[in-house]
Amino acid sequence: MEHLSREVRLVSRPNGASTHSNFEIAEVELQPLGSGEVRVRNTWMSVDPYMRGRMRDYESYLPPLQIGKALEGAAVGEVVESNDPGFATGDTVLSMLGWRDVFNAPAAALRKPEVEVSSPEMYLGVCGSTGHTAYIGLADVIKLQPGQIIFISGAAGAVGSIACQIAKLMGATVIASAGGAEKRAYLKQLGVEKIIDYKKTENLSQALAELAPSGIDAYFDNVGGDHLDAALASAKTFARFALCGMISGYDKTVSGPSNLLMAIEKRLLLQGFFVLDHLSRRGEFIEKMNRWIRNGDVRYRETVEVGIERAPAAFLKLFSGENVGKMLVKLA
Amino acid sequence: MEHLSREVRLVSRPNGASTHSNFEIAEVELQPLGSGEVRVRNTWMSVDPYMRGRMRDYESYLPPLQIGKALEGAAVGEVVESNDPGFATGDTVLSMLGWRDVFNAPAAALRKPEVEVSSPEMYLGVCGSTGHTAYIGLADVIKLQPGQIIFISGAAGAVGSIACQIAKLMGATVIASAGGAEKRAYLKQLGVEKIIDYKKTENLSQALAELAPSGIDAYFDNVGGDHLDAALASAKTFARFALCGMISGYDKTVSGPSNLLMAIEKRLLLQGFFVLDHLSRRGEFIEKMNRWIRNGDVRYRETVEVGIERAPAAFLKLFSGENVGKMLVKLA
Repeated sequence: MEHLSREVRLVSRPNGASTHSNFEIAEVELQPLGSGEVRVRNTWMSVDPYMRGRMRDYESYLPPLQIGKALEGAAVGEVVESNDPGFATGDTVLSMLGWRDVFNAPAAALRKPEVEVSSPEMYLGVCGSTGHTAYIGLADVIKLQPGQIIFISGAAGAVGSIACQIAKLMGATVIASAGGAEKRAYLKQLGVEKIIDYKKTENLSQALAELAPSGIDAYFDNVGGDHLDAALASAKTFARFALCGMISGYDKTVSGPSNLLMAIEKRLLLQGFFVLDHLSRRGEFIEKMNRWIRNGDVRYRETVEVGIERAPAAFLKLFSGENVGKMLVKLA
Repeated sequence: MEHLSREVRLVSRPNGASTHSNFEIAEVELQPLGSGEVRVRNTWMSVDPYMRGRMRDYESYLPPLQIGKALEGAAVGEVVESNDPGFATGDTVLSMLGWRDVFNAPAAALRKPEVEVSSPEMYLGVCGSTGHTAYIGLADVIKLQPGQIIFISGAAGAVGSIACQIAKLMGATVIASAGGAEKRAYLKQLGVEKIIDYKKTENLSQALAELAPSGIDAYFDNVGGDHLDAALASAKTFARFALCGMISGYDKTVSGPSNLLMAIEKRLLLQGFFVLDHLSRRGEFIEKMNRWIRNGDVRYRETVEVGIERAPAAFLKLFSGENVGKMLVKLA
């Protein structure tokens, strides 16, 4: 029944940590396609920590998600019916209309990938916003140089695990932080030699100082909180910090750091960035990443939940740190 | 007795706010000049908030001050005796050897000003590190553009009061924060129209949001703490923050901010800077500032204490917010 679909709606705004009660799965009946509209069956959708920000009632990167409406996020799908000359049945399309099985949308809400990849879910992970985020943070924000020492937090996650590998390709020494034996083992597989297991570390600042006695040149922040404090404490003069995410702080109203004075004393640059500001260079990035993957220079891993009814669980696992690599939901 | 002098020594490191008990005035007997040495009588010395950082036992901009030794800081003086061919009696010299009346130093510790000013204490204020700090923060860090809206905290202080005027010269709209009627009046004299008296303001973020309903393009931070929180809350996307000082945080171990997540969501740049990194361009700056002063475009004010025995009091007043404009100590 191609005109029946399911979607995940936000039914309440999280107060602190988000929970299953903030979501509901709803059946929807699709209207016949209007002129210029396209019907898409999503095959894969992404869940990302930044979505937590859009659940609050203020404008951040993007407008806040609306109560009672379907959530939004990156998805890849196939056109099942088209009333627009730019799209044909069977086309692979990218959109921000994840969290739903099948949907109608105006053609302008869809994008055909500029560069092919070997499997469509890669558009959501290593060749999509997560991989591109790692690349932008290192190349454009930090401007990482060969021989530098970089600290990367959330290092076994979607962005972090790619950032570790690109940083090594750029000639840097990587100090990675992640929590738990599985993530440590994964980082070792990726060739990262200096690893901090923050779950086993009482004093993160001290652990980082021991691994980088002469300090760090750069910090790729996916975590915030005490990780950012540790990076501020260990930063060399003129170090550069790419502020990518603060998973430790999304659920709280207070997120530190306690020693930002270091940013003045050490003349640090801290820069927030968002990959969608750099979308015009996505194709160029995918070509580079395809080469790296083909040469075995970058490996990637996915943690997959199956079925739209598992999408809220997949999202919640991001915050309990259960994913290794990119967290995805397979929808079809 | 030119071979007797006085100096201010650090006798203990402040724990929290610094107090008179951290300082002592000591008499010292100067040795005869060695080869390549110069004897200088300081005429003016500077007290600056950053000195609080050097009283802690860790390396910041500069090595920590040593217990039992004279403090250090910018000073201007006159050569009274010279054993170095580069300096002659009567020369005006600049050094980091403030906090003492007369001292011997190797010629390398002294600098002759490259550009003349109308009164020597200006080398410590409007034409010295404070004025230059304001200029670097606006021109190099923020890269302030005509038509932009900038928030400046500590706006009636040494750096802030010059920053307000340069920002207006650069074509920006200034929102200034300072505490108390005298400082408000001074800012009005300087032509600043939008002023927040933080001492009379319960919710700084709300006050800033009301004065800048469409947000701020830039923030010149002299204060940290809740001022930085307010700036983060009101920042437009891609706003640039010059982190110059955190007078609210020097005495504490925790200095916020509570909402640094905004730096990611709004893709902000936050950059710490220190004027001594830019000393090679001091002469060029003084020429520019001399022109501005001559044309009446920049006015400056000094709060002066007289006598080295008043130097600790002058320093402590920086933290109780008693100075308007540049705080100086006249030594001779």
